[in-house]
Amino acid sequence: MKVTALAGGIGGSRFLRGVRAALPDADITVIGNTGDDITLHGLRICPDLDTVMYTLGGGISAERGWGREAETFVVAEELAAYGVGPAWFGLGDRDLATHLVRTQMLDAGHPLSDVVAALCVRWAPGVRLLPMSDQRVETHVIISDEQGQRAIHFQEWWLRLRAATPATSIVPLGAEKATPAPGVLDALADADVVLLPPSNPVVSIGTILAVPGIREAVAKTSAPVVGVSPIIGGAAVRGMADACLTAIGVETSAQAVGQHYGGRGRTGGAATGLLDGWLVDPVDAATIVPGAAVAARPLLMTDLAETTAIVRAALELAGV
Amino acid sequence: MKVTALAGGIGGSRFLRGVRAALPDADITVIGNTGDDITLHGLRICPDLDTVMYTLGGGISAERGWGREAETFVVAEELAAYGVGPAWFGLGDRDLATHLVRTQMLDAGHPLSDVVAALCVRWAPGVRLLPMSDQRVETHVIISDEQGQRAIHFQEWWLRLRAATPATSIVPLGAEKATPAPGVLDALADADVVLLPPSNPVVSIGTILAVPGIREAVAKTSAPVVGVSPIIGGAAVRGMADACLTAIGVETSAQAVGQHYGGRGRTGGAATGLLDGWLVDPVDAATIVPGAAVAARPLLMTDLAETTAIVRAALELAGV
Repeated sequence: MKVTALAGGIGGSRFLRGVRAALPDADITVIGNTGDDITLHGLRICPDLDTVMYTLGGGISAERGWGREAETFVVAEELAAYGVGPAWFGLGDRDLATHLVRTQMLDAGHPLSDVVAALCVRWAPGVRLLPMSDQRVETHVIISDEQGQRAIHFQEWWLRLRAATPATSIVPLGAEKATPAPGVLDALADADVVLLPPSNPVVSIGTILAVPGIREAVAKTSAPVVGVSPIIGGAAVRGMADACLTAIGVETSAQAVGQHYGGRGRTGGAATGLLDGWLVDPVDAATIVPGAAVAARPLLMTDLAETTAIVRAALELAGV
Repeated sequence: MKVTALAGGIGGSRFLRGVRAALPDADITVIGNTGDDITLHGLRICPDLDTVMYTLGGGISAERGWGREAETFVVAEELAAYGVGPAWFGLGDRDLATHLVRTQMLDAGHPLSDVVAALCVRWAPGVRLLPMSDQRVETHVIISDEQGQRAIHFQEWWLRLRAATPATSIVPLGAEKATPAPGVLDALADADVVLLPPSNPVVSIGTILAVPGIREAVAKTSAPVVGVSPIIGGAAVRGMADACLTAIGVETSAQAVGQHYGGRGRTGGAATGLLDGWLVDPVDAATIVPGAAVAARPLLMTDLAETTAIVRAALELAGV
């Protein structure tokens, strides 16, 4: 069975552990978000790709959900002693080695997809991890504060401002000129099932879908497409997805996010959206997504067994 | 009093602590060797400049004499886990932050001399530290082994091969096209005394002197020039200076090194060398350097008090 999943960071990675457990023999392709990428201290940092790689490769910090287990922050402490910021980005020493290897490979001319493949030789995540694009896409957030209206990097909004300063809009800079990385479109076209994990629908899944060709490939694939709601009872399970949804004018509810993705309507009419199925929590059982089937089961990924059960419910909804 | 010293790494830095202690009110300029510089993992590393900066700034590892106190090696361990070498270069985490800051500034177009000045804002070494040149000079060593004759970076010869593979020659690549960094020639011309610490006469002092204009400026300065022998009783006090001297056909003795620098002969005849005075250990009291005065006193820099006394003897020999 060929499974293709779009994924952001922490939530997506946990869900993917469940996919791997539910389908140990499947050929799993993960299309990772790179809109969170940032260059700091001359180092190219890909937080979401690394979170997937570390989580599936056994190197993630179980406590934080991002960065490395047994991490130290000596370099960051020294950079601060030189007065070199930003202080709001948690740059661990172990993590930094990944960025050094990646930056050197990129500087040598290797595309990001090759770099990710090289890093994954060490981590052996058990999935084929692809960046959404080899071109640089960076999500910026338009905010208004005492300094007026301005665009800041998503990471600054997310980490320094904790997404508390309202966003006027969220823009994946460079996305319109980006092309899907090698293998991305094929992985969507050839899949037996496409999964949208409970990642952030705006800055994770939304950014991936903003790369020209990817949304169309999801909409057109012959495989069933099933999404899992990141919203339970009107609140994001984790992270600050509500601030992102508000910025794009979507209510923070399982139903609104499902309708934002939209049903494919394959059983009745023209395809207008992406979803054949939308899995929600029982508290949201009344959710309606025209053109998609809705099913409910508890969606808190409390441990691997529970996460695997969630994945099985999504696969069941997909009919595979 | 204006003191200008040429300096390599560990030996030079220890000597400079003595200079600062002997002349607390002096205006001290240090012209540092950059021939040991190397780019690893995309980071520009300047071992000798950093050793001077850390030693005089209170950040040096007292035990090793290079690198930072309370150093950790987490990033290096991770790079090794990715299979990325070289393993023979000790890249500490604290040290790495310095290289990150430097590399970013260099990449942004700042000359090395400005970078050094910026780093010294933190370390406040109590001297004006200048790189010998803002241009890139890298010492390479020609060796012959089972792979035939080839040139390797000085650091590989020094650290990986422990200078045990004989060098056919030692070449400061790029030196012939380099120019002295801003302030270097003035610091030599305007000095009240010029000191050659007991640094490696080939790959430290010799490399600095290989930058066109610097040897001439030392030879022509009106200030007395006094050197301190790095050789005691036919052996290098530390390091593997003997292997370097052998490569350039100079005997490992205080006299041979003194004669290699050469006396200036200011009291009798044409200037043919660099030294007005040559300070040796009592075991080498019979040393003769034509054109230079030779004095003897114990030269082991066992602690700061003893090092300061050595500096005082050098200043006395200089007549300042």
